[in-house]
Amino acid sequence: MMSPSRDSLVDALSMKGGNGEHSYDSNCHYQRGVFSETEHVVKESIKEMLMNLDFPGCIKVADLGCSSGRNTLLAMFEIVNTIIETYQQLGRTNPPEMDCGLNDLPHNDFNTTFKLVPSFLEKLKMEVKGRCFVSGVPNSFYSRLFPSKSLHFVHSSLSVHWLSKVPDGLENNNKSIHIKDPCPPNVYKSYLNQFKKDFSLFLRMRSEEFVPNGHMVLTFVGRKVTEPLSKDCFQVWSLLSDCLLDLVSEGVVRESEMEYFNMPFYNPNEEEVREVVQNEGSFKINKVETHDHIVPYKIEKDDEDLISPELIEAGKDRATCLRCLTEPLLVAHFGEAVIGPVFDKYAQYMAKYLSVSGHRPNMTLNIVVSLTRK
Amino acid sequence: MMSPSRDSLVDALSMKGGNGEHSYDSNCHYQRGVFSETEHVVKESIKEMLMNLDFPGCIKVADLGCSSGRNTLLAMFEIVNTIIETYQQLGRTNPPEMDCGLNDLPHNDFNTTFKLVPSFLEKLKMEVKGRCFVSGVPNSFYSRLFPSKSLHFVHSSLSVHWLSKVPDGLENNNKSIHIKDPCPPNVYKSYLNQFKKDFSLFLRMRSEEFVPNGHMVLTFVGRKVTEPLSKDCFQVWSLLSDCLLDLVSEGVVRESEMEYFNMPFYNPNEEEVREVVQNEGSFKINKVETHDHIVPYKIEKDDEDLISPELIEAGKDRATCLRCLTEPLLVAHFGEAVIGPVFDKYAQYMAKYLSVSGHRPNMTLNIVVSLTRK
Repeated sequence: MMSPSRDSLVDALSMKGGNGEHSYDSNCHYQRGVFSETEHVVKESIKEMLMNLDFPGCIKVADLGCSSGRNTLLAMFEIVNTIIETYQQLGRTNPPEMDCGLNDLPHNDFNTTFKLVPSFLEKLKMEVKGRCFVSGVPNSFYSRLFPSKSLHFVHSSLSVHWLSKVPDGLENNNKSIHIKDPCPPNVYKSYLNQFKKDFSLFLRMRSEEFVPNGHMVLTFVGRKVTEPLSKDCFQVWSLLSDCLLDLVSEGVVRESEMEYFNMPFYNPNEEEVREVVQNEGSFKINKVETHDHIVPYKIEKDDEDLISPELIEAGKDRATCLRCLTEPLLVAHFGEAVIGPVFDKYAQYMAKYLSVSGHRPNMTLNIVVSLTRK
Repeated sequence: MMSPSRDSLVDALSMKGGNGEHSYDSNCHYQRGVFSETEHVVKESIKEMLMNLDFPGCIKVADLGCSSGRNTLLAMFEIVNTIIETYQQLGRTNPPEMDCGLNDLPHNDFNTTFKLVPSFLEKLKMEVKGRCFVSGVPNSFYSRLFPSKSLHFVHSSLSVHWLSKVPDGLENNNKSIHIKDPCPPNVYKSYLNQFKKDFSLFLRMRSEEFVPNGHMVLTFVGRKVTEPLSKDCFQVWSLLSDCLLDLVSEGVVRESEMEYFNMPFYNPNEEEVREVVQNEGSFKINKVETHDHIVPYKIEKDDEDLISPELIEAGKDRATCLRCLTEPLLVAHFGEAVIGPVFDKYAQYMAKYLSVSGHRPNMTLNIVVSLTRK
């Protein structure tokens, strides 16, 4: 199998489709947890928006980077219900029509989501049935997705940290797939530049699509540190780098394949996010919240040298979760055969990491940004 | 495998997805041919519409019952290009934005179509790139699909002959899957009533979605005869009935399975179509054209008793074409195992039918209706 070029690697970026054992749909508990943590910001933002709009007959909302399966419609259901409730609270007897766009890249598994649309529509309150329209929009959110001045509300969860391409200038980053301590200084700069370009483009595309006073809530992975070179930027990719390096030394992965693979991902800190929004200029920042990463299970241990069965299980859980996010990307570059060995190793490394991580500060977090189109 | 109820049978209605040997995408030459025959009506309708609209900044168009694969985007490409050309011809230098909705039932294979969207957008002329937005709308066209007063142009090819459900009252139609000579009189009445209800509902749903003076072009299978009881209504289903009856007598299909299966399909004559449009009342009929069914190959034969290799090949072609349209429906009712035997038989029967059909009048045709929202 030929490795795709660095640019086309992003064409393979998608969550694992269907609803099988390793699919995103079966393994997205974490993403579901994140939405329940950020839901209050979404609701607050919708309510504030509706106070400043003149009760349009049709409200157009979009979820960008929606992925596939049940999660996709979970956020949309809360958005639709919040709109209806707010209309009622503000004394409007008729709910508006709601036009709901679900966006992801063209090779995302929309079929799995679309099969759930009838039950989504069925679950809506009686007076809303027939007034809610769902569509799928297959394109990169780094391009225009909707007609000018058509959107009222945009939600995006755990997507904007994915870059439009692997940054240029990472040729010397050959022992890692991301920003990993120690690391040449240009690696961080390349990633930061790509993030600034991409996030700025994202905001400009949306600014054209929004009606004035439209609102947007974005949640994505960020980091706490301001000095990225002294720390690993995202521990998950550092562990995955270690797994791949092991497979290189075992002869399963070719060294050249490892050298040319870098994750199209950047987790910015809060200042970097604020700076891009302010420089782009179309949106006002209402609020930025940060949330520590959720650990969805408790780890209780007495002896950190001994890796307990609980930690081994926890490591496997984390590996399964990462697999549903990265399998299509890794298969596109390394081929099918590496998937089993990589995630077996990852489960072991993660168990070890968890056994000591209680003593280490958690460097990553989720950033929730609430914006208003000026 | 349990047979689904008569109502839920329509949930299994879809063209065969993917792009494999038996997929709709690989076998839809006939449907492609039909579009090239009706394209002039589509173009004429768009041009007339644009003369009566005040150059909207965004034109919203939809293809209803789009199916999956290359055909889906073929009609949309011509629609988009016609809009652009007409704007130019009318002296507008900037093309409008175009919002293109592709509709089909939720279990349609949208993924295969969506993978083709990037090349569709790429093929558009330079000045149009970034101004054309494609979305998929997974719902029955017998319900509301789009917000009120949002649509400018609707196209639907070879879809409106599919009913929303198997008609009630077909319990005594147990030797056929459709209207087949000889046939109890209530069978024809049940089918006609269901068609009237469904097509009327289709028009009412669209009437709410259209802007005033919006246009719609519908192509579907119809028939020439006014007296359906003296003839088979649709020869394709009559031949398929014969195949299934053979399999009943061979013990491959249970008699009870055959008795409870009826095609959710009706091919109206021109009068029936005109009557429903006039009674519903929201649309003006601009034009009705009828086109004889295309025979996409030539049959030359000297001796009609001898089934020539050409006819055997032609029978196989027709069987493959029908298979991509009906396989999901047949599998839902009869199970996977019947598919091979049914279409082997169908190929043989069709070859025989073709060997004599030169001497029989062709009873079916395609009806093209061009409508304007009043």
